[in-house]
Amino acid sequence: MDPRPALDAFVAQHLDASLDELAALCRIPSLRRDPAALERAADWVAAALGRRGFQVQVFHFPGAAPVVYAVRPGRSSRTLLFYNHYDVQPPDPLDAWTSPPFEPTRRGGKFYARGASDDKGHLVSRLLAVDALLHALGELPVTVKFVVEGDEEGGGSAGLHRMVAQHPDLLRADGVIWEFGGVDAHDNPLQYLGTRGLASVALEVQTLPHDMHSGIAGSLLPNAAWRLVWALESLKGPDGRIRVAGFYDRVQPPSARDLELLAALPDLPDAAAADFAAVLGLEPGAPVPLEVKRRAVFEPTANIAGLTAGYQGPGKKTVLPARARALLDFRLVPWQDPAAVPGLLRAHLDAHGFPDVQVHDLGGVPPMKMDPDHPFVDRVVAAADEVYARPMLKVPLRGVTGPGYLFVHRLGLPVATSGLGYPGANLHAPDENIREDLYALAARHAARIALRLAE
Amino acid sequence: MDPRPALDAFVAQHLDASLDELAALCRIPSLRRDPAALERAADWVAAALGRRGFQVQVFHFPGAAPVVYAVRPGRSSRTLLFYNHYDVQPPDPLDAWTSPPFEPTRRGGKFYARGASDDKGHLVSRLLAVDALLHALGELPVTVKFVVEGDEEGGGSAGLHRMVAQHPDLLRADGVIWEFGGVDAHDNPLQYLGTRGLASVALEVQTLPHDMHSGIAGSLLPNAAWRLVWALESLKGPDGRIRVAGFYDRVQPPSARDLELLAALPDLPDAAAADFAAVLGLEPGAPVPLEVKRRAVFEPTANIAGLTAGYQGPGKKTVLPARARALLDFRLVPWQDPAAVPGLLRAHLDAHGFPDVQVHDLGGVPPMKMDPDHPFVDRVVAAADEVYARPMLKVPLRGVTGPGYLFVHRLGLPVATSGLGYPGANLHAPDENIREDLYALAARHAARIALRLAE
Repeated sequence: MDPRPALDAFVAQHLDASLDELAALCRIPSLRRDPAALERAADWVAAALGRRGFQVQVFHFPGAAPVVYAVRPGRSSRTLLFYNHYDVQPPDPLDAWTSPPFEPTRRGGKFYARGASDDKGHLVSRLLAVDALLHALGELPVTVKFVVEGDEEGGGSAGLHRMVAQHPDLLRADGVIWEFGGVDAHDNPLQYLGTRGLASVALEVQTLPHDMHSGIAGSLLPNAAWRLVWALESLKGPDGRIRVAGFYDRVQPPSARDLELLAALPDLPDAAAADFAAVLGLEPGAPVPLEVKRRAVFEPTANIAGLTAGYQGPGKKTVLPARARALLDFRLVPWQDPAAVPGLLRAHLDAHGFPDVQVHDLGGVPPMKMDPDHPFVDRVVAAADEVYARPMLKVPLRGVTGPGYLFVHRLGLPVATSGLGYPGANLHAPDENIREDLYALAARHAARIALRLAE
Repeated sequence: MDPRPALDAFVAQHLDASLDELAALCRIPSLRRDPAALERAADWVAAALGRRGFQVQVFHFPGAAPVVYAVRPGRSSRTLLFYNHYDVQPPDPLDAWTSPPFEPTRRGGKFYARGASDDKGHLVSRLLAVDALLHALGELPVTVKFVVEGDEEGGGSAGLHRMVAQHPDLLRADGVIWEFGGVDAHDNPLQYLGTRGLASVALEVQTLPHDMHSGIAGSLLPNAAWRLVWALESLKGPDGRIRVAGFYDRVQPPSARDLELLAALPDLPDAAAADFAAVLGLEPGAPVPLEVKRRAVFEPTANIAGLTAGYQGPGKKTVLPARARALLDFRLVPWQDPAAVPGLLRAHLDAHGFPDVQVHDLGGVPPMKMDPDHPFVDRVVAAADEVYARPMLKVPLRGVTGPGYLFVHRLGLPVATSGLGYPGANLHAPDENIREDLYALAARHAARIALRLAE
């Protein structure tokens, strides 16, 4: 008997109850600054999975929020792993919220709360999928695992790193469903297949023991702000090309298939990029040129995120700054190595006359890229095509960064995306929300991914 | 009868009383932010001059602190004008003062208070000179005028500007004694004969309506911080040469006489520069190379005083800054025109592909330079040589800026310096102080300048 009508009916009938469950989780202000709330959220997740017959373990790694790991065997020996997180972004500015961030509110077909989309809604919609599968089949079609951490928002996924390093066996699976997924501005479901890497550095230069009077010292003593400007200019000119020797050595250009997938996207490869199409001079509704889409994600960047030197107050002050600092992030494409970036910068600065400019390594994340036609990916896409009104589009690479490389490149597992995100979700912003129709679709999609994996 | 022994004896006998008078003035916290205190200080100055037989007028110009103008005719029709100011720098940080800034304290042969040196001590030492002249001669040897404003510290000498524009006749004189003067680290009295000009500008660029996520926008959208870096680099490279077309057009190199005077100085041309000789790698006590002295003051500068863009907090944030700002000051040498600098920058930026970088004119001050061998200067030097143990050294140009051009280049009056400054005075800093021995010498010098001018 085809279980799919029963699955879909269960999701429709239990939508309100599932959103009540989500509201309970969203009432916990699981902020990085509130370890007790993180513990409560982890306990809530462990209990919710325990109620559903999962064997649950909670790992307390030093320096990390608790990691909830759960497994429930299914009919097939194949295994599906869901990765999620229970921590949330800070809610500031509080006065910009229509309803308070930790008092979940439904209005106009949407559900508002901090964490509603990122990432509690994704997690609880998957619990609804588990409930639907158990109702329709009496058991799970495949073994299902959850790994739910609390260090995703600003904690560098410390918990997930520990799990990958210490318990790779527990994470073994035939496919991983990433924390989020969603639709574009036209309600096309998207399949995200890669993320860029990131290398963060600070460049700092100190030329003098303290700031000086610019009239007295200006002609003779070195100005830290000028040193920084010249060092930065040596890294990249107005043509955008990064001048650091070796920086492009490991860059893999997009394949013909990547370009074909990019060409099929109506928008830029990042949903959130829709709101700056106007800045780029793109006509609303007109197709985005392939070259622009390519450049958006397949080119590495050198971004100045911050500049600080000398006097920054109102009016003026005639000071010669002793210290200057730039915060930079480099977005990396496959297969650039973030760990190599600080050393390349050091060598570049030394070779260009800037031995005085210090390079501080602020950490990095490697790029991640899936084979866009991996069988697991195609199962997830086929499952989506049963649920969504429009076919799922494959996005070969996103501009942003994430810890997916841990699964794909450390553990060798295929990763695909599924979820309820949409461009109006206000991630990391006031009035974060989910659309209830997309919540139901995401639950139905998650259940059908398990069915597809069992085939 | 030679009045000079009587003058010197009077100063010695009345030193304590004069310092008491100075203490009364220093107890008035005549800060720019306290207009009532500025009024009280102006009243105090007017009363002190009135008590000495001066005809006093107090000018209240709109937007300026009161200007005290006073004149007392003397034996000769020649006229000596003293320029001073009664406002003081803010005393912050208060907790760095050994005794409170507005509770004058004498200890170890020094007198500590905010304004002790800059500029109340100079003013009151000149009142002591007037008293000594009246005591020794029964009258003043020349007509003496005072113009004392309250807008010197951060107010752009608004009061003095108004006097020069509206009452140039009142300021007519055969010579002007500038607000300050003093000795170097070896107690050589210095004669300052010029100041550099100043042009202050802010460069600002805005590339986007608001900051963006560097992962999503970084490859496509313009980064204001990079635009600013490239625009700044186009202005000046590591060789220090300013690349703005026309910037050097009006530069007058030092004359052979200027270089001769520079060569005779044991130190850099600014007394405050002594404390960074070590940074320059100069041996303590070894002669400073003439080329270094020349470069210290006879080269114009382009100084970055401040840089501001994007994220400046701890840690990191992956943001693409929409706005960036640089505060710059250009020190100008004779006969560069500060009013021309913003236009030269605008033309340069337009020609180099930076029409998006805005230039904000924050005002300027022209350079000032006296003929180092002007007869009035030589009278002041000759008077010093009678008083100080060491001969007065002529400094052809200083690196800093001042409003002396108003007298020299607007009114056509010769200006010379006399005073009680010394390198340890802590101007604009906690524990501002004067040496009591130099206070007496400055009073004796001021009195003898009047005698010399009468000859």
